[in-house]
Amino acid sequence: MDRLRKHIEQITPVNDDEFEHVKTFFTLKRVKKHQYLVQEGDQATHEYLILSGIFRMFYLDSEGKEHIVQFAGENWWMADYQAYFNQKQATLNIVCMEDAEVLCTTLPGRETLSSDIHKMEHFFRVKLTKGYVAQQRRIISLLSSTPQQRYEEFGKLYPDMMQKIPKKYIAEYLGVSRETLSRLYSR
Amino acid sequence: MDRLRKHIEQITPVNDDEFEHVKTFFTLKRVKKHQYLVQEGDQATHEYLILSGIFRMFYLDSEGKEHIVQFAGENWWMADYQAYFNQKQATLNIVCMEDAEVLCTTLPGRETLSSDIHKMEHFFRVKLTKGYVAQQRRIISLLSSTPQQRYEEFGKLYPDMMQKIPKKYIAEYLGVSRETLSRLYSR
Repeated sequence: MDRLRKHIEQITPVNDDEFEHVKTFFTLKRVKKHQYLVQEGDQATHEYLILSGIFRMFYLDSEGKEHIVQFAGENWWMADYQAYFNQKQATLNIVCMEDAEVLCTTLPGRETLSSDIHKMEHFFRVKLTKGYVAQQRRIISLLSSTPQQRYEEFGKLYPDMMQKIPKKYIAEYLGVSRETLSRLYSR
Repeated sequence: MDRLRKHIEQITPVNDDEFEHVKTFFTLKRVKKHQYLVQEGDQATHEYLILSGIFRMFYLDSEGKEHIVQFAGENWWMADYQAYFNQKQATLNIVCMEDAEVLCTTLPGRETLSSDIHKMEHFFRVKLTKGYVAQQRRIISLLSSTPQQRYEEFGKLYPDMMQKIPKKYIAEYLGVSRETLSRLYSR
Protein backbone atom coordinates (compact mmCIF):
# COMPACT_ATOMS: atom_id res chain seq x y z
CA MET A 1 0.00 0.00 0.00
CA ASP A 2 3.07 2.24 0.30
CA ARG A 3 3.14 2.38 -3.46
CA LEU A 4 -0.47 3.54 -3.54
CA ARG A 5 0.34 6.38 -1.16
CA LYS A 6 3.37 7.38 -3.21
CA HIS A 7 1.24 7.27 -6.35
CA ILE A 8 -1.44 9.53 -4.84
CA GLU A 9 1.14 11.90 -3.38
CA GLN A 10 2.59 12.55 -6.83
CA ILE A 11 -0.57 14.61 -7.21
CA THR A 12 -1.66 15.59 -3.70
CA PRO A 13 -0.36 14.99 -0.17
CA VAL A 14 -2.64 12.98 2.15
CA ASN A 15 -2.21 12.64 5.90
CA ASP A 16 -2.08 9.33 7.80
CA ASP A 17 -5.75 9.34 8.78
CA GLU A 18 -6.82 10.07 5.24
CA PHE A 19 -4.61 7.33 3.86
CA GLU A 20 -5.93 4.82 6.42
CA HIS A 21 -9.38 5.54 4.98
CA VAL A 22 -8.19 5.43 1.36
CA LYS A 23 -6.54 2.05 1.63
CA THR A 24 -9.67 0.31 2.90
CA PHE A 25 -11.03 0.70 -0.64
CA PHE A 26 -8.22 -1.20 -2.37
CA THR A 27 -7.28 -4.87 -2.56
CA LEU A 28 -4.17 -6.43 -4.05
CA LYS A 29 -4.39 -8.97 -6.87
CA ARG A 30 -1.66 -10.95 -8.60
CA VAL A 31 -2.10 -11.73 -12.27
CA LYS A 32 -0.09 -14.19 -14.38
CA LYS A 33 1.06 -13.68 -17.94
CA HIS A 34 -1.78 -14.55 -20.40
CA GLN A 35 -4.40 -14.26 -17.62
CA TYR A 36 -7.49 -12.17 -18.37
CA LEU A 37 -8.23 -9.38 -15.92
CA VAL A 38 -11.43 -8.45 -17.76
CA GLN A 39 -13.31 -10.48 -20.35
CA GLU A 40 -15.95 -9.25 -22.75
CA GLY A 41 -19.35 -9.98 -21.17
CA ASP A 42 -18.12 -9.74 -17.55
CA GLN A 43 -19.89 -7.24 -15.33
CA ALA A 44 -17.42 -4.31 -15.17
CA THR A 45 -17.20 -4.14 -11.39
CA HIS A 46 -13.57 -3.08 -10.91
CA GLU A 47 -10.86 -0.75 -12.10
CA TYR A 48 -7.17 -1.43 -11.61
CA LEU A 49 -4.07 0.51 -10.68
CA ILE A 50 -1.10 -1.39 -12.10
CA LEU A 51 1.79 -1.74 -9.65
CA SER A 52 3.90 -3.90 -11.95
CA GLY A 53 3.54 -5.77 -15.23
CA ILE A 54 2.05 -4.85 -18.59
CA PHE A 55 -1.48 -5.30 -19.94
CA ARG A 56 -3.16 -4.83 -23.25
CA MET A 57 -6.78 -3.86 -23.71
CA PHE A 58 -8.49 -4.90 -26.92
CA TYR A 59 -11.78 -5.16 -28.70
CA LEU A 60 -12.60 -8.38 -30.51
CA ASP A 61 -14.67 -7.79 -33.65
CA SER A 62 -17.30 -10.17 -35.01
CA GLU A 63 -14.64 -11.90 -37.13
CA GLY A 64 -12.42 -12.55 -34.12
CA LYS A 65 -9.89 -9.88 -35.05
CA GLU A 66 -8.20 -8.12 -32.13
CA HIS A 67 -8.12 -4.29 -32.12
CA ILE A 68 -5.76 -2.95 -29.44
CA VAL A 69 -7.19 0.10 -27.66
CA GLN A 70 -4.20 0.62 -25.39
CA PHE A 71 -1.32 -0.89 -23.49
CA ALA A 72 -0.84 -0.09 -19.80
CA GLY A 73 2.14 -0.45 -17.46
CA GLU A 74 3.26 0.59 -13.98
CA ASN A 75 1.21 3.38 -12.41
CA TRP A 76 -1.48 3.31 -15.08
CA TRP A 77 -5.15 2.94 -14.26
CA MET A 78 -7.08 0.58 -16.43
CA ALA A 79 -10.66 -0.58 -16.98
CA ASP A 80 -13.24 -0.83 -19.70
CA TYR A 81 -14.31 2.61 -18.51
CA GLN A 82 -17.30 2.86 -20.81
CA ALA A 83 -18.73 -0.23 -19.09
CA TYR A 84 -17.34 0.54 -15.62
CA PHE A 85 -18.72 4.07 -15.32
CA ASN A 86 -22.10 2.85 -16.51
CA GLN A 87 -21.88 -0.37 -14.45
CA LYS A 88 -22.57 -2.51 -17.51
CA GLN A 89 -21.01 -5.58 -19.09
CA ALA A 90 -17.53 -5.15 -20.53
CA THR A 91 -17.18 -5.05 -24.31
CA LEU A 92 -13.39 -5.02 -24.07
CA ASN A 93 -10.83 -7.55 -22.88
CA ILE A 94 -7.82 -6.83 -20.68
CA VAL A 95 -5.07 -9.42 -20.70
CA CYS A 96 -1.79 -9.65 -18.83
CA MET A 97 1.39 -9.63 -20.97
CA GLU A 98 3.93 -9.85 -18.12
CA ASP A 99 3.33 -11.17 -14.54
CA ALA A 100 1.69 -8.33 -12.68
CA GLU A 101 0.38 -6.92 -9.43
CA VAL A 102 -2.61 -4.61 -9.45
CA LEU A 103 -4.69 -2.79 -6.87
CA CYS A 104 -8.42 -3.19 -7.42
CA THR A 105 -11.13 -0.77 -6.48
CA THR A 106 -14.80 -0.29 -7.33
CA LEU A 107 -16.97 2.54 -8.60
CA PRO A 108 -18.71 2.96 -5.22
CA GLY A 109 -15.19 3.09 -3.74
CA ARG A 110 -14.09 5.83 -6.15
CA GLU A 111 -17.27 7.82 -5.52
CA THR A 112 -17.21 7.46 -1.73
CA LEU A 113 -13.55 8.44 -1.51
CA SER A 114 -14.16 11.44 -3.78
CA SER A 115 -17.04 12.58 -1.65
CA ASP A 116 -15.35 11.93 1.73
CA ILE A 117 -11.99 13.53 0.91
CA HIS A 118 -11.78 16.58 -1.35
CA LYS A 119 -8.13 15.79 -2.09
CA MET A 120 -9.12 12.38 -3.48
CA GLU A 121 -11.71 13.98 -5.76
CA HIS A 122 -8.85 16.20 -6.91
CA PHE A 123 -6.61 13.17 -7.42
CA PHE A 124 -9.17 11.39 -9.60
CA ARG A 125 -9.89 14.58 -11.56
CA VAL A 126 -6.20 15.08 -12.36
CA LYS A 127 -5.80 11.43 -13.43
CA LEU A 128 -8.86 11.71 -15.67
CA THR A 129 -7.47 14.89 -17.19
CA LYS A 130 -4.28 13.09 -18.16
CA GLY A 131 -6.24 10.14 -19.53
CA TYR A 132 -8.49 12.46 -21.51
CA VAL A 133 -5.51 14.18 -23.09
CA ALA A 134 -3.86 10.85 -23.97
CA GLN A 135 -7.08 9.71 -25.65
CA GLN A 136 -7.46 12.95 -27.62
CA ARG A 137 -3.90 12.42 -28.84
CA ARG A 138 -4.70 8.83 -29.87
CA ILE A 139 -7.81 9.93 -31.80
CA ILE A 140 -5.87 12.54 -33.75
CA SER A 141 -3.14 10.02 -34.44
CA LEU A 142 -5.64 7.42 -35.70
CA LEU A 143 -7.31 10.02 -37.92
CA SER A 144 -4.34 11.62 -39.51
CA SER A 145 -0.95 10.01 -38.97
CA THR A 146 1.04 7.80 -41.29
CA PRO A 147 2.38 4.47 -39.90
CA GLN A 148 5.85 6.06 -39.74
CA GLN A 149 4.54 8.97 -37.63
CA ARG A 150 2.54 6.67 -35.36
CA TYR A 151 5.60 4.48 -34.84
CA GLU A 152 7.81 7.45 -33.96
CA GLU A 153 5.21 8.95 -31.63
CA PHE A 154 4.74 5.66 -29.80
CA GLY A 155 8.50 5.22 -29.36
CA LYS A 156 8.83 8.75 -28.02
CA LEU A 157 5.88 8.55 -25.61
CA TYR A 158 6.44 4.99 -24.38
CA PRO A 159 10.09 3.95 -24.87
CA ASP A 160 9.78 1.22 -22.18
CA MET A 161 6.82 -0.43 -23.85
CA MET A 162 8.58 -0.29 -27.20
CA GLN A 163 11.29 -2.49 -25.64
CA LYS A 164 9.08 -4.88 -23.69
CA ILE A 165 6.07 -5.54 -25.90
CA PRO A 166 6.30 -8.15 -28.69
CA LYS A 167 6.44 -6.51 -32.12
CA LYS A 168 3.34 -8.39 -33.20
CA TYR A 169 1.21 -6.38 -30.74
CA ILE A 170 2.90 -3.07 -31.48
CA ALA A 171 2.10 -3.60 -35.16
CA GLU A 172 -1.52 -4.30 -34.24
CA TYR A 173 -1.71 -1.22 -32.02
CA LEU A 174 -0.27 1.00 -34.76
CA GLY A 175 -2.49 -0.55 -37.38
CA VAL A 176 0.38 -1.67 -39.63
CA SER A 177 1.55 -5.03 -40.93
CA ARG A 178 4.47 -6.92 -39.31
CA GLU A 179 6.50 -6.29 -42.46
CA THR A 180 5.93 -2.53 -42.34
CA LEU A 181 6.87 -2.49 -38.66
CA SER A 182 10.10 -4.41 -39.32
CA ARG A 183 11.01 -1.87 -41.99
CA LEU A 184 10.33 0.97 -39.53
CA TYR A 185 12.46 -0.71 -36.81
CA SER A 186 15.39 -1.23 -39.15
CA ARG A 187 15.63 2.47 -40.06
CA MET B 1 -25.62 32.82 -16.35
CA ASP B 2 -28.87 31.07 -15.39
CA ARG B 3 -28.04 28.46 -17.98
CA LEU B 4 -24.63 27.88 -16.40
CA ARG B 5 -26.26 27.28 -13.01
CA LYS B 6 -28.79 24.90 -14.53
CA HIS B 7 -25.94 23.09 -16.32
CA ILE B 8 -23.94 22.67 -13.11
CA GLU B 9 -27.00 21.63 -11.13
CA GLN B 10 -27.63 18.73 -13.48
CA ILE B 11 -24.67 17.25 -11.63
CA THR B 12 -24.56 18.94 -8.24
CA PRO B 13 -26.63 21.61 -6.43
CA VAL B 14 -24.80 24.86 -5.58
CA ASN B 15 -26.09 27.55 -3.24
CA ASP B 16 -26.37 31.26 -4.13
CA ASP B 17 -23.06 32.25 -2.52
CA GLU B 18 -21.24 29.48 -4.30
CA PHE B 19 -22.77 30.37 -7.63
CA GLU B 20 -21.88 34.06 -7.16
CA HIS B 21 -18.28 32.91 -6.87
CA VAL B 22 -18.53 30.48 -9.81
CA LYS B 23 -19.88 33.02 -12.26
CA THR B 24 -16.99 35.44 -11.76
CA PHE B 25 -14.87 32.93 -13.68
CA PHE B 26 -17.00 32.93 -16.84
CA THR B 27 -17.52 35.44 -19.65
CA LEU B 28 -20.03 35.29 -22.48
CA LYS B 29 -18.90 35.34 -26.10
CA ARG B 30 -20.95 35.41 -29.32
CA VAL B 31 -19.56 33.58 -32.32
CA LYS B 32 -20.76 33.83 -35.93
CA LYS B 33 -21.04 30.96 -38.40
CA HIS B 34 -17.62 30.26 -40.02
CA GLN B 35 -15.80 32.15 -37.24
CA TYR B 36 -12.82 30.38 -35.63
CA LEU B 37 -12.97 30.01 -31.87
CA VAL B 38 -9.51 28.40 -31.79
CA GLN B 39 -6.89 28.38 -34.52
CA GLU B 40 -3.85 26.13 -34.76
CA GLY B 41 -0.90 28.04 -33.32
CA ASP B 42 -2.99 30.14 -30.89
CA GLN B 43 -2.05 29.92 -27.23
CA ALA B 44 -4.74 27.61 -25.76
CA THR B 45 -5.86 29.98 -23.01
CA HIS B 46 -9.58 29.17 -22.85
CA GLU B 47 -12.12 26.40 -22.80
CA TYR B 48 -15.75 26.86 -23.79
CA LEU B 49 -19.15 25.75 -22.59
CA ILE B 50 -21.50 25.93 -25.58
CA LEU B 51 -24.86 27.53 -24.77
CA SER B 52 -26.16 27.42 -28.34
CA GLY B 53 -24.83 26.66 -31.82
CA ILE B 54 -22.65 23.89 -33.23
CA PHE B 55 -18.88 23.67 -33.64
CA ARG B 56 -16.50 21.29 -35.27
CA MET B 57 -12.99 20.61 -34.09
CA PHE B 58 -10.46 19.41 -36.62
CA TYR B 59 -6.83 18.73 -37.27
CA LEU B 60 -5.30 20.00 -40.49
CA ASP B 61 -2.59 17.69 -41.83
CA SER B 62 0.51 18.77 -43.75
CA GLU B 63 -1.40 18.39 -47.02
CA GLY B 64 -4.20 20.69 -45.86
CA LYS B 65 -6.68 17.84 -45.36
CA GLU B 66 -9.18 18.32 -42.53
CA HIS B 67 -9.62 15.47 -39.99
CA ILE B 68 -12.66 16.03 -37.77
CA VAL B 69 -11.99 15.08 -34.16
CA GLN B 70 -15.49 15.92 -32.91
CA PHE B 71 -18.59 18.02 -33.26
CA ALA B 72 -20.01 19.84 -30.23
CA GLY B 73 -23.41 21.37 -29.54
CA GLU B 74 -25.43 22.79 -26.65
CA ASN B 75 -24.10 21.96 -23.18
CA TRP B 76 -20.84 20.50 -24.47
CA TRP B 77 -17.47 21.68 -23.26
CA MET B 78 -14.86 22.17 -25.91
CA ALA B 79 -11.16 23.01 -26.20
CA ASP B 80 -7.99 21.64 -27.68
CA TYR B 81 -7.56 19.97 -24.29
CA GLN B 82 -4.15 18.54 -25.03
CA ALA B 83 -2.88 22.12 -25.53
CA TYR B 84 -5.14 23.70 -22.90
CA PHE B 85 -4.21 21.42 -20.00
CA ASN B 86 -0.53 21.85 -20.84
CA GLN B 87 -0.96 25.61 -21.58
CA LYS B 88 0.63 25.22 -24.98
CA GLN B 89 -0.19 26.31 -28.53
CA ALA B 90 -3.24 24.70 -30.10
CA THR B 91 -2.67 22.08 -32.80
CA LEU B 92 -6.40 21.85 -33.51
CA ASN B 93 -8.94 24.28 -34.97
CA ILE B 94 -12.43 24.91 -33.66
CA VAL B 95 -14.85 26.58 -36.05
CA CYS B 96 -18.46 27.67 -35.66
CA MET B 97 -21.01 25.94 -37.94
CA GLU B 98 -24.13 27.75 -36.68
CA ASP B 99 -24.31 31.14 -34.86
CA ALA B 100 -23.43 30.43 -31.26
CA GLU B 101 -23.08 31.66 -27.70
CA VAL B 102 -20.39 30.22 -25.47
CA LEU B 103 -19.18 30.78 -21.94
CA CYS B 104 -15.40 31.09 -21.69
CA THR B 105 -13.23 30.15 -18.76
CA THR B 106 -9.51 29.58 -18.18
CA LEU B 107 -7.38 26.84 -16.67
CA PRO B 108 -6.56 28.95 -13.57
CA GLY B 109 -10.33 29.49 -13.29
CA ARG B 110 -11.05 25.75 -13.45
CA GLU B 111 -8.32 24.98 -10.91
CA THR B 112 -9.27 27.77 -8.48
CA LEU B 113 -12.94 26.83 -8.55
CA SER B 114 -12.08 23.15 -8.02
CA SER B 115 -9.91 24.00 -5.06
CA ASP B 116 -12.31 26.55 -3.50
CA ILE B 117 -15.50 24.50 -3.84
CA HIS B 118 -15.45 20.71 -3.48
CA LYS B 119 -18.73 20.49 -5.40
CA MET B 120 -17.10 22.19 -8.40
CA GLU B 121 -14.22 19.72 -8.34
CA HIS B 122 -16.90 17.03 -8.37
CA PHE B 123 -18.66 18.75 -11.28
CA PHE B 124 -15.48 18.88 -13.39
CA ARG B 125 -14.61 15.27 -12.50
CA VAL B 126 -18.02 14.02 -13.62
CA LYS B 127 -17.82 15.99 -16.89
CA LEU B 128 -14.35 14.58 -17.56
CA THR B 129 -15.61 11.08 -16.86
CA LYS B 130 -18.31 11.48 -19.52
CA GLY B 131 -15.80 12.94 -21.97
CA TYR B 132 -13.37 10.11 -21.29
CA VAL B 133 -16.03 7.51 -21.99
CA ALA B 134 -17.10 9.23 -25.23
CA GLN B 135 -13.49 9.27 -26.39
CA GLN B 136 -12.95 5.60 -25.54
CA ARG B 137 -16.05 4.84 -27.63
CA ARG B 138 -14.68 6.89 -30.53
CA ILE B 139 -11.32 5.11 -30.41
CA ILE B 140 -12.97 1.69 -30.53
CA SER B 141 -15.20 2.85 -33.34
CA LEU B 142 -12.23 4.18 -35.36
CA LEU B 143 -10.33 0.94 -34.81
CA SER B 144 -12.97 -1.58 -35.57
CA SER B 145 -16.23 -0.35 -37.09
CA THR B 146 -17.37 -0.45 -40.68
CA PRO B 147 -18.69 2.81 -42.23
CA GLN B 148 -22.23 1.40 -41.90
CA GLN B 149 -21.73 0.76 -38.16
CA ARG B 150 -20.14 4.19 -37.59
CA TYR B 151 -23.02 5.85 -39.41
CA GLU B 152 -25.65 4.02 -37.37
CA GLU B 153 -23.83 4.69 -34.08
CA PHE B 154 -23.52 8.41 -34.85
CA GLY B 155 -27.22 8.67 -35.73
CA LYS B 156 -28.19 6.90 -32.53
CA LEU B 157 -25.91 8.94 -30.25
CA TYR B 158 -26.42 12.34 -31.88
CA PRO B 159 -29.73 12.45 -33.79
CA ASP B 160 -29.82 16.29 -33.61
CA MET B 161 -26.42 16.69 -35.18
CA MET B 162 -27.32 14.18 -37.88
CA GLN B 163 -30.12 16.60 -38.88
CA LYS B 164 -28.23 19.87 -38.56
CA ILE B 165 -24.72 19.18 -39.84
CA PRO B 166 -24.04 19.25 -43.60
CA LYS B 167 -23.49 15.75 -44.97
CA LYS B 168 -20.05 16.73 -46.24
CA TYR B 169 -18.79 17.06 -42.65
CA ILE B 170 -20.54 13.95 -41.39
CA ALA B 171 -18.83 11.99 -44.16
CA GLU B 172 -15.49 13.46 -43.11
CA TYR B 173 -16.12 12.66 -39.45
CA LEU B 174 -17.06 9.06 -40.25
CA GLY B 175 -14.13 8.67 -42.61
CA VAL B 176 -16.26 7.73 -45.63
CA SER B 177 -16.77 9.26 -49.06
CA ARG B 178 -19.81 11.45 -49.87
CA GLU B 179 -21.07 8.71 -52.17
CA THR B 180 -20.89 6.05 -49.46
CA LEU B 181 -22.70 8.37 -47.05
CA SER B 182 -25.48 9.04 -49.57
CA ARG B 183 -25.92 5.30 -50.00
CA LEU B 184 -26.16 4.88 -46.21
CA TYR B 185 -28.70 7.72 -45.91
CA SER B 186 -30.91 6.28 -48.60
CA ARG B 187 -31.24 2.89 -46.84
